[in-house]
Order: sequence, then structure tokens, then C-alpha cells
Amino acid sequence: MSELLQQTIAMIHPLDEEAMGKVRLRQHQLTKPRGSLGRLEELSVRIAGITGKVMPNIEQKAIVIMAGDHGVIAEGVSAYPQEVTAQMVYNFLRGGACINVFTRHIGARVVVVDTGVAARLEPHSSLISRKIASGTGNMAKEPAMTREQALRAIVGGIEVVNDEVTKGLDIVGVGDMGIGNTTPSSAICAAVTGEPVAKVTGRGAGISDEQLALKVRVIEAALTLNKPDPKDTIDILSKVGGFEIGGIAGIILGATAQRIPVVIDGFITGAAALIAYGLCPRVKDYLIAAHVSAEAGHKVVLDYLGLKPLLDLEMCLGEGTGAALGISIVEAAIKALVEMATFADAGISEKVE
Amino acid sequence: MSELLQQTIAMIHPLDEEAMGKVRLRQHQLTKPRGSLGRLEELSVRIAGITGKVMPNIEQKAIVIMAGDHGVIAEGVSAYPQEVTAQMVYNFLRGGACINVFTRHIGARVVVVDTGVAARLEPHSSLISRKIASGTGNMAKEPAMTREQALRAIVGGIEVVNDEVTKGLDIVGVGDMGIGNTTPSSAICAAVTGEPVAKVTGRGAGISDEQLALKVRVIEAALTLNKPDPKDTIDILSKVGGFEIGGIAGIILGATAQRIPVVIDGFITGAAALIAYGLCPRVKDYLIAAHVSAEAGHKVVLDYLGLKPLLDLEMCLGEGTGAALGISIVEAAIKALVEMATFADAGISEKVE
Repeated sequence: MSELLQQTIAMIHPLDEEAMGKVRLRQHQLTKPRGSLGRLEELSVRIAGITGKVMPNIEQKAIVIMAGDHGVIAEGVSAYPQEVTAQMVYNFLRGGACINVFTRHIGARVVVVDTGVAARLEPHSSLISRKIASGTGNMAKEPAMTREQALRAIVGGIEVVNDEVTKGLDIVGVGDMGIGNTTPSSAICAAVTGEPVAKVTGRGAGISDEQLALKVRVIEAALTLNKPDPKDTIDILSKVGGFEIGGIAGIILGATAQRIPVVIDGFITGAAALIAYGLCPRVKDYLIAAHVSAEAGHKVVLDYLGLKPLLDLEMCLGEGTGAALGISIVEAAIKALVEMATFADAGISEKVE
Repeated sequence: MSELLQQTIAMIHPLDEEAMGKVRLRQHQLTKPRGSLGRLEELSVRIAGITGKVMPNIEQKAIVIMAGDHGVIAEGVSAYPQEVTAQMVYNFLRGGACINVFTRHIGARVVVVDTGVAARLEPHSSLISRKIASGTGNMAKEPAMTREQALRAIVGGIEVVNDEVTKGLDIVGVGDMGIGNTTPSSAICAAVTGEPVAKVTGRGAGISDEQLALKVRVIEAALTLNKPDPKDTIDILSKVGGFEIGGIAGIILGATAQRIPVVIDGFITGAAALIAYGLCPRVKDYLIAAHVSAEAGHKVVLDYLGLKPLLDLEMCLGEGTGAALGISIVEAAIKALVEMATFADAGISEKVE
């Protein structure tokens, strides 16, 4: 295992119980009935545990979008042609995609990373290259990547988040772009959780019943051919994963090591969370599930990780769009904790006990 | 019925089907898989139907908090003393309450209206007086108010929203403040929906099991004594309602008449929506349910009105706090509609059909 990856995992500590206890007490002093902010109060406690701060500050927000292509689309598992991955990267860089709209809405920056797009992308000041190869191998016929490439994909994510931390980062949301990437995500989900492929495979960007049946067969065949070891998530990533999925797992590990809350998005980032969780189960305490996607399988991932989503808006767009909306909810929870008056401040009578 | 109320109801028209059809088409042209924004796409269609605009603009946002007191708290149904209503009004005016934090978060203004607080409130530039009386009568012993007062409460709400429209208003959220006001809300809910009182009565700001049992008995007794006519929501409001609940019903009717989307909050604003719905069933098309409250009965209200909440964060704070978070989601939905690139704009390949 790479040195940076080992160091990163070694830096991941349990949540700060002392900070969490202090926030629980403060929540009782704020001018509202106890518990009346529901899950927002729980969130504020967890953010304190993650950051170690009783009065956390969520100002510097980023969505990191990892983009990559997938050899398996040769099998006909996707609704869109492969060129759309690169086209959407340019859309991100021009500010026309949904994630651009949502990050402007919440006041976050977008970081776009090429982990393995099957095109030579024009250089751009907002595009980071951590390219491993021009798309993965077709997992229906061969491993998606080598073990060394899988490690490099994860390390690339750690490096990207470490760079963002030096720029200032209080919370990070993860997003994905990669035509065909629900296919490796379903394969990872089936391999890690042991659930049947059909249960964790959905329509992605909108395939027909026939294509869905084909997609299930392709994933089953890829698992049978490659035999990923369920106990070794780097093996799973290399055999049936994707470069952007490895990169997202790296973001999750790197942010967690720096005590920065990580907001995951939909099914693809969920699959990446499974990879990161396999390397260090403690990461799950640092993950906030923004929403449950309409894509079949996402709920399986969240249940496996013991995460309860904040939102259920029947979205399945990816790009970090759900994560962006989730960050806004987290920010509201923290602002309530930090900015609300206490009963004592406001001279308000407390509950009659 | 008052002239303004009649005029207002006469102005409430069906949703604009043409605008809705155009938005459905535009959603198909935006750079995302069809339907992948889920409920946000539905929301954009409905906002178009409400406003009549294919490219709506949500810039001027307001939360209107209606405050009032309740004679029924003499029966021991509340966890907090009555003086807290006035204390919280001052907290709103000083900016220390949760709704102040959330409106700052979403960039909305707060409008605070005294509809019947049982205290002489100090004048303040941000406090509007539409005071009917210093608290309602104790519905366990007498009607909460006269029919004339009920009408004045509703008209007061219409006047307030009409004034806000002249200042500029693209969306309005409604909120409440009134110690004891889950009690009239449960009474209204039981009277309108015919559900048993015990099913629609909860713990409000946190009462004990004994107090909850007492609260149910008090509401049952009030309904038996006052016999509100289930077909006449003004009768229900006058016998077992509250001034702020009438005021919120007025905001709902007034905003709807002006084709402005109304985001409702929790159980109290839900009870107000039942009053408004009884006067003009078409208002429900203009209502957006921000969240489902942890308060028992709110789900009954939403089901009765056929509204599906956007959020379920187990909140039950009132003040419009859920509405504020809901407005931010609506705004994201509209920004996606208006600001996203189309496939043609971005030169992106469309789905393979």
C-alpha cells in the first residue's frame, strides 16, 4: 500500500466525544424547545465530533467532481455515448451544469478532476489532472484496472483534497461524472454487501427494461470472471471499479484524516464510500449522506454504512448535486448552533418542569 | 364575509397549464438525464403554474411570522408559560431566534406580526400590529373568538401580504409563534378532517404523558362545548382557533390570489392551510409543504390536503423554520430550470434512443 495512503489512514481518529458533549449541552440552552431542530441538532453534534470544534465554522465549501470513463460501456449498458463524459466536463468548466447552479446557490467552489476521461481534455485553470488512463478496461472481459492503478486513483484523491485543505476547506461534497459509472458502482455494491446484482442495479441515466436486464447480466459476468475478494476493497476497485470511484474514495479518506466533514452524493459516491470504508471502517462517522438517490442500490449502500440520508427528493443526477443541497442543510444546522441566542442571552423563561 | 376576503378568493385562479407545459419541455432540454432532478423538476413545473412564468425569478423572499396567545393555556396544556410568546417576538426582532438564522442563511426577510399577543409590545420598525385582542378566549369554556374577530384575523393576513407584495415578493413562507398553539391546531385538524383528537394531538414544545392526556381531554371538551361546523372553517377558526392561525390563513389566501407560491411550515401553519382550503379549495395547488413536522397531526393535515413534504428532518420548532429550508430547495429548483445549459447550448450529445 502506498505510503501516503497508509499515513492518511493512520491519521483517522474517533470522533471528539468531548466536543460532542459540549454541543449537546449548548443545544439545550438555545431559544427553542429541546430537540425541536430534530436531525439538525444531531448533525451539529456530529460536526463537532468530526471537527473537534464546539463552535464550528462552515464557510469554505467545495464540491469535488471526479470524472472518468468506463470500458464496460462497449457492452451497451449506458443510455448515453462515452463522449458525453468529456462534454460534461467542459459544461462544468463553463458553469452550465446543474452542479454549477447548485454550488453558486450554496456559495461553494467546484473542483473538477480528470481521473481517466477517454479524451484529451483541453487544459483549463479549474481542471485538475490525475489521469490514470483513457478509461478503464472492460470489466466484462478483463479487470477494470491494475491494483497499482487502483492505488494511484485513491492516492490522487487524497492529494487533491490535501491541496484543497491548504486553500481553506471546512466541508467537502463529492460528485462524479462518468458515462456508464452506475455499472461499476453496482458491481462494487454487490461485491461488498453480498446482495444480488439485480437488487443493486438500476436504470442509470434512463435505460430500457431490455438494457437493464443486459446490464445485470454484464455485471454478473464481470464478477464471475474477475472474482473480486469481498474482504479487499482495493481488489474490488481494481477488478470492477472505476478511476473516478477510486478518486472519490481518496477524497473521503483524505478529508476524514483532516477532520473535515464529507458529504456524499448518490450511488456512485456511495460505492466509493464502500471502498473507503473497507480500508478504514471509521470513515463512516465522518460521512454525511446528503440524500437517497432514485437509483436502485443507493439505499442498500446507505443501510450497509448505517447512514440516514438528509433528503429524499427522488434525484439521480450525480455531479455532487445532492451533496450540494445537503451541505446547505448542514450549514443551516451549524449556523443555528453558533448564531442562535440562548435563553439567558434573550431573557426568555425556560420550560416549566 | 368581508369585501376584501371575497375579492381575494375571487382572484384565485387555476394553475397556468400553458406555462407548466413549456417548463416540462424545457426540463427535457437541460443537460441532465430526463427526470434526474426528481421532485425539483415537479417543483419547477408547479412554480410555473403558480406564477404563470416559464422562467420564474425567486429573489424576494419573506417569512411572515404571525404571533398570538391562547386562553386555553389556563388549562395546563403547554410546556412553557404564556410570557414566552412576547419574549420570542422580541427575540425575532433582535435577530436571535432560529428563524432569524435561517432567513439570513437563505437571504430572506422576516416580517413579524402581532395578531393577539397577551402583552403590550414595544413598537419596533419591524413589528406589524394587526392585534385583534390580548389572547383568545379559553376554548375549553367559551369560543376562542367571535366570528367577526375570526374574519378580521384572516383579513389582517391578507393586508399584510398585500403590503409585502408592494415591496416585492416572489415567494412567501409562513410561520407561527404562540405558546399553546398546537392545542387549537389539533382542534382545527380534528374538526376539519374528522380524525380522533388523540390521533392529531402531540407534545408541542415537550409536555409529559400526563399533560398530553389532559391536552386531548381539553380539546375534546372544547369541541363538544363549541360544536364547530365542519363545513364552515370560519366557524371552526372562531370557536377553537387562534388569531395567528387566522392571520396565516389570510397570508395563504392573499399570496395565492397574487400568484405567489406559499411555503407552509409545520402543524400550526398546516391547520391554517385547512382553514384557507375550506374557504377556497384551489389554494392547495399554490401550497408547497416544506417539511413534515415531528408533531403528531401534521402528517394528517398534509395527507388531507394532498401535499407531499420536501423535507423530513424531524423538526418541530415552528417560526417558519421548516419553511425557510423549503424555500431554499424551491430556489435551487428554479435556478436549475433557469440557469442550466441546454444540450444545444453546450454541444452535448443526447441520449441514444
